Order: sequence, then C-alpha cells, then structure tokens
Amino acid sequence: MPQKRTAFFISDRTGITAEMLGHSLITQFEMVDFSEVTMPFIDSVEKAEAAVAKINARGASDGARPLIFSSLVNPDVSAVVARANALFLDCFETYIRPMEKELAVSASHAVGRSHSAQNFENYHHRIEAVNYSLGHDDGASTRELKEADVILVGVSRCGKTPTCLYLAMQFGIRAANYPLIPEDFANRQLPGQVKNLRDRLYGLTIKPERLQQIRNERRPNSTYATLSNCEFEVREAEAMMRRENIPFLDATSKSVEELATTIVHEGKLVRRIY
Amino acid sequence: MPQKRTAFFISDRTGITAEMLGHSLITQFEMVDFSEVTMPFIDSVEKAEAAVAKINARGASDGARPLIFSSLVNPDVSAVVARANALFLDCFETYIRPMEKELAVSASHAVGRSHSAQNFENYHHRIEAVNYSLGHDDGASTRELKEADVILVGVSRCGKTPTCLYLAMQFGIRAANYPLIPEDFANRQLPGQVKNLRDRLYGLTIKPERLQQIRNERRPNSTYATLSNCEFEVREAEAMMRRENIPFLDATSKSVEELATTIVHEGKLVRRIY
Repeated sequence: MPQKRTAFFISDRTGITAEMLGHSLITQFEMVDFSEVTMPFIDSVEKAEAAVAKINARGASDGARPLIFSSLVNPDVSAVVARANALFLDCFETYIRPMEKELAVSASHAVGRSHSAQNFENYHHRIEAVNYSLGHDDGASTRELKEADVILVGVSRCGKTPTCLYLAMQFGIRAANYPLIPEDFANRQLPGQVKNLRDRLYGLTIKPERLQQIRNERRPNSTYATLSNCEFEVREAEAMMRRENIPFLDATSKSVEELATTIVHEGKLVRRIY
Repeated sequence: MPQKRTAFFISDRTGITAEMLGHSLITQFEMVDFSEVTMPFIDSVEKAEAAVAKINARGASDGARPLIFSSLVNPDVSAVVARANALFLDCFETYIRPMEKELAVSASHAVGRSHSAQNFENYHHRIEAVNYSLGHDDGASTRELKEADVILVGVSRCGKTPTCLYLAMQFGIRAANYPLIPEDFANRQLPGQVKNLRDRLYGLTIKPERLQQIRNERRPNSTYATLSNCEFEVREAEAMMRRENIPFLDATSKSVEELATTIVHEGKLVRRIY
C-alpha cells in the first residue's frame, strides 16, 4: 500500500501560487498517495492557529506528517504555521533573503499587492480580453476581427475556445477564433473574413480519433461525428494551413496551458498582464 | 533613478508556475524597476545554452545581474542555466531534497507530468466546465441550471462572467450566472429559474460608481449607465440577496482570482481539477 500524505497549500491570499508550485512538486512523487488541501486567506495569528490545529489533526489521522507549502508573507503568521507538526516548505522567505542581498534593498513584506494600480490595470486588460474573446468565439462576430492579437483557426471542436479563453485570462491577449468548415475546404481557400489577416492566424489541429470522441459526446451518432468525416476535415484543414503558411499545433495531447504558452511564445505575442 | 533589473522565468514546460511565484516575489520590491521575461520549453542543453547567452546579454545591457526563477526539472539543463551570470533561484531542487528526505523516496525528476492520466482527466473536466459556463452565461440557457455547482447572481456588469470562467478554468467548477434585473426588483423576488436553487446561489455586488464607469464604456450615455440607475440596481440587488440569505461579495476591489477562490472556499465547493 502506498504511503498516504496530505499536502497543505497555505497563503495570506488566494493560495494559487503555493498550490501550483506544491502541486507540480508532489507530482514528482507518484508512489505517494497525496491528498491536497488549500487554505487561502490565512491573514491573522488566530486563523493560523486554527489552521495548525487542522493540519495536526490530519497528520494524526493519516499516521504521517503533512507537507505544508506556504506562501505566507506575514512573518508572525508564518511563524505560527511553521510550528505545526509537518514539513514546512516556505515558498516566500526562501527567496526573499537572497533577493534582498542581491538587490541591496529590503522587501516590503506587504500582503495583497493585488490592489495596487498595476493590478487594477491588469484587471481591466483581462476583462477586456475575456469579453473580446467571448464576443469573437466561433466566428460569432467578425466586425472587430482586425482588433484581435491572434485568431485561432481549425476544425470545429479542436480546442479553439478554451485556448482563446486561457490566452485572454492568463495573458490579457485578445484571442478570437474562427472555424474552418467543409465549405472552406470545397473552395480551397480561407474564409473571406480572415483571409486578409493571415499574419494573425494560428492553427490548431487534433487527431481524428480524438475529435470523433469529442464530437460524439456533443452530437451522438451524427455524420458530423463519424471517424471518416473527422479524418476528412482534419486532413483538409491541415492541408489548407500548410498551403497558407499558417503555423499550427496539435492539441491532442497538450494541455490548454501548453497550447496557449506555445502560441504566445512562437507567435511572439505581447502579453498585457502578468 | 530606480535600479533596473530583469527577471527571467525559465522552465522545461510552460513556465507558468515559475512566473507566478517569481512575479509575486518581485512585487515585494516596488523600488526596483523590473522587466519580466518568460522562457518556456527549455528542454535541452542546447536551448539552455542559448538562454544563458540571452540572459548574460541582458545583464550586460541592464548593467546589473538578472534574477532567474527556474522550475527546470532536468538536472543537466538546470546545471547549464545555473552558470549564467545571474542570481539563480531554484524553485524545484530547493524543495525536492527535503521532500525526498521526508517521504523517504526519490523524486522521479520527470518533465511533463501533464500528459499523465490524471491530467487528461483534468483537461476533460476543465473543458466540460468551460463549455458549461459559456452555455450558461447571463441566463443564456436555463435548461441545465440544476447541473451547476454554483450560480452567480448580481446586476448586469458586476463581474459574473469572468469569475465564472475563472472558476471553470482553474477549478473545473460548473459555474453558471444569472442576472438580477429591474423586473426582479419590482416583483421583489428571485427570478423563477433560480428560485428553487437557492443553496447554489452566490452573489456579487459592486460599488455604483465603478458600475457606472463599466456600463458607460459599453453603452455610453444610456439610462442603463447613469449613476442613479446603478445606485438603484445595486441597492435593490443587495437588499434582495440579504432578504433571501444569499451570501455575496463586493467585486469592486477584488481580483478575479480572489473572488473565485473566496467563493470556492466559503461556498465549500468541490474542485474537480488541480
């Protein structure tokens, strides 16, 4: 039986950073059966003490010390959590010290930088980009396609929409998408609406077997979802993207994060938020 | 003049973890003028050498050593990058060693865990949740509201849509949203479609001044966007949420991450992905 452990992600704020870092670290130990618990908004000594009680109780019931990934900024709160009966891994102080030395200045140790002016601007960019991407999903509106930072093209259900939303949400990029459909293949040319925006096009493709599976969940037993139709559409779409010199990625075994990051990186897109 | 530095976020994969951690750390040094550069997919010694050349060139032009936040998993690649003329901060090895000691097993040091079965499942949950949230935006479809994990309610343009999409994208939660409109206030009751789903409702509110600003960008000089109308709608919506015992948050000065995390945490929602 694999050993059972609990990983706690604990933060003064949302805990998303501690969670992402901690989660990627524990996936390096596949032989351990991990449970994951996020404790956000631990911003007082009282809350820290309550958290420690929970962590210690969990360790007792697991029969093994929990792991704590902490991005706590407040040193008083952090000191309380560090006393839990657990392996305490500090994702903040570990780096702040060498950074202070390198930069020859002191860190502010301020929680909640998200309310600063820069983050207000980030918020605005993100909302604008999300609204833009929602309004330009699946060719829904072609009016302002010229304002897109990138336009994803590909067959229906190949993953364009979630990739666009991730680009908008994570990077503040205005990502539209436009489907390639059998009519375009018959015409052997790009849809008129995107033909003159070729430098902004980025393609997605997918393995026909996977596409069939996805389409079949949406419209069971339709012609649209047959393997032969999926094979045809994917073959034609890839041929068109090659002919038109549109760079494209295979979405079959890539996560949305990987697709979006690759498009930003290879397309040299300028992100609006960090 | 503030000192100028460049922070590099470098990774075998997307770099999103190194970027989030590094970005939150550098915001602790507001007196330093940081540029941020992400270098994803550095998965070979050759790419690492090219990255080091760029980092060193940047340090020379800045006139100060860059900072490197690395989540490189491959020790050979990492060793190359560590030799750059920069402060090298290792977001992987720093934790792997104490974790190995605590767990009494060795880490796999495998890159690209995202292709494992768990991550395929995550992908599926995320896409399902995003599709669900898109299909149930702004009361677009009430057919399957019963399948929602949470239904956000609030006045038009208070931030429901981006919060829903973040819930879907980050946590795999099926988040629908339903607007509260003047008709509901006149009836003094919740819209019929959500009345019987009260335990799944979560409210958002916003300061009338901020709402006016947002609405005015959308529909300049409309009655909809006047301050008096915004004040009326917000007052009525808050009164209704109090009357109906619907928990609610003020979105005015919170980031989308904070809103989403708070809703998951306080609403005790079960996330489907990590």
